[in-house]
Amino acid sequence: MATLQVPAYVPAPSEDAEQLRHAFEGWGTNEQLIIDILAHRNAAQRNLIRKTYHEAYGKDLLRSLDEELTSDFERAVVLFTLDPAERDAHLVNESTKRFTSSNWVIMEIACTRSSLQLFNVRKAYHALYNKSLEEDVAHHTKGDYRKLLVPLVSTFRYEGEEQEVNMSLAKAEAKILRDKISDKEYSDEEVIRIVTTRSKAQLNATLNHYNTAFGNFFNKDLKADADDEFLKLLRAAIKCLTVPEKYFEKVLRQAINKVGTDEWALTRVVTTRAEVDMVRIKEEYQRKNSATLEKAIARDTSGDYEKMLLALIGAGDV
Amino acid sequence: MATLQVPAYVPAPSEDAEQLRHAFEGWGTNEQLIIDILAHRNAAQRNLIRKTYHEAYGKDLLRSLDEELTSDFERAVVLFTLDPAERDAHLVNESTKRFTSSNWVIMEIACTRSSLQLFNVRKAYHALYNKSLEEDVAHHTKGDYRKLLVPLVSTFRYEGEEQEVNMSLAKAEAKILRDKISDKEYSDEEVIRIVTTRSKAQLNATLNHYNTAFGNFFNKDLKADADDEFLKLLRAAIKCLTVPEKYFEKVLRQAINKVGTDEWALTRVVTTRAEVDMVRIKEEYQRKNSATLEKAIARDTSGDYEKMLLALIGAGDV
Repeated sequence: MATLQVPAYVPAPSEDAEQLRHAFEGWGTNEQLIIDILAHRNAAQRNLIRKTYHEAYGKDLLRSLDEELTSDFERAVVLFTLDPAERDAHLVNESTKRFTSSNWVIMEIACTRSSLQLFNVRKAYHALYNKSLEEDVAHHTKGDYRKLLVPLVSTFRYEGEEQEVNMSLAKAEAKILRDKISDKEYSDEEVIRIVTTRSKAQLNATLNHYNTAFGNFFNKDLKADADDEFLKLLRAAIKCLTVPEKYFEKVLRQAINKVGTDEWALTRVVTTRAEVDMVRIKEEYQRKNSATLEKAIARDTSGDYEKMLLALIGAGDV
Repeated sequence: MATLQVPAYVPAPSEDAEQLRHAFEGWGTNEQLIIDILAHRNAAQRNLIRKTYHEAYGKDLLRSLDEELTSDFERAVVLFTLDPAERDAHLVNESTKRFTSSNWVIMEIACTRSSLQLFNVRKAYHALYNKSLEEDVAHHTKGDYRKLLVPLVSTFRYEGEEQEVNMSLAKAEAKILRDKISDKEYSDEEVIRIVTTRSKAQLNATLNHYNTAFGNFFNKDLKADADDEFLKLLRAAIKCLTVPEKYFEKVLRQAINKVGTDEWALTRVVTTRAEVDMVRIKEEYQRKNSATLEKAIARDTSGDYEKMLLALIGAGDV
């Protein structure tokens, strides 16, 4: 469930566009007004505002935001304003240009979006960058990381409603996983095949059977070598595919509890999940940390950036 | 260009559906009437006929065709009547259940369809089989074949109009291909990456540069081991990606010149290309064989099956 709060009465897109134009004009920017509008409209509404703004003022709204705002606040507003598919395409593109730790962002997007959403990200990538998402991911990775990430971003998992789990397949593939893990063949093609092509429901059944049959969680067995970076990424992928709220809770916890908040991650998770499953992520955060996510964010951030994040997670000022 | 011939005046779908119903009724089936209708309607028209038929008679047209027709003629009519995306999904599904030579059909569909067409095949696969195309392909292949085929069916290559070829990339990747081939590392991850993720235009530039820089066609260098089945498949993939009409000409030639025609392949190529590029394939056939494809097909097939194929390649009776 989303934490995004859209008012009962939503002004016409032209009115919102005009208000935003006012917020940019004159001496100083009216940040509160920007938050009041953009942090309280859904994706379809934001798209319409952007379109109307462009028609009225001959300029992309994102361009104006870029000129008027700065730093973490700017990134939060711009990322949230973007259409979800474009936003993800942008995040992946950014990740292919940064250090290897950004493999996590690529994995996160590939594993926590629905099949059709992920395909829409690939379509948006074509339109924005005149190349394909998977060719950039493949070009900028190698070895085991490429072997895992390219199929993850290219897959179109089955997720229809009539999904019946095939239990004999689940048992057979749990056994395959067990054998490969016992032999420490973590990046074996069979492990990759099962993780990257099976539907989430089927994979879940396989992992449940793994737990029942072998007395251990698959992800626990993958902890054999706690410092292995590839294993960490593989474990995170499994988490994203099966219990995304737990994955996001951990990213948020680590971003906030770091010496010096990791605004990059904090902004990404809040802007990409506010309209999706932030309610569950907040519950998970409270359960794990005995404190609300609102308080944690309020303690660690400040100013307009803080206000924007709190608005997106449905808190208002704390 | 398509060889499919649609008459200037096309009856309403309800009229076509009624005529087909008549063709099935009574003593014996009116095969000529079935050909006159179904072999002369485009995909959108055939879909409408199928829909109208179902509404009027409470039965899928394909089901009726299946009951009334037999053997090669049935397969040709049914395959052509299917929506192109469903047809390809059906062909891939069939291939994952047959012998390894059917890897060629999977490769052919992955490499000769446009990016969006291939994605529509994957969507149709979900709807028809309640699982994903790539999970079946991955499950039914292994080793080098899997390594090549899974990314081939999963890719969404860039093919926008604003496609600019990156020449320095083409040079760099031609060099990579050359190095790997010289070391006989034909299934190296870099070779696979270049062949499976780059746009067709970019790949073409890379292969052209390969030819210029190293004095040999890439595909000729891949002939080092003429009996290697994986190398044959890789060469065919390159051909499908760059000169599909030459690939299809060869499939037709081999299907026809075999001792005992290979109707399976003949029907597949004619029904899948009649609405796409059969004009070019016919030209290529005539150039290579100093005989028309019409004559070759007429010599090797007979009866309603012959009539159906000739109608699809725009020949009428010969």
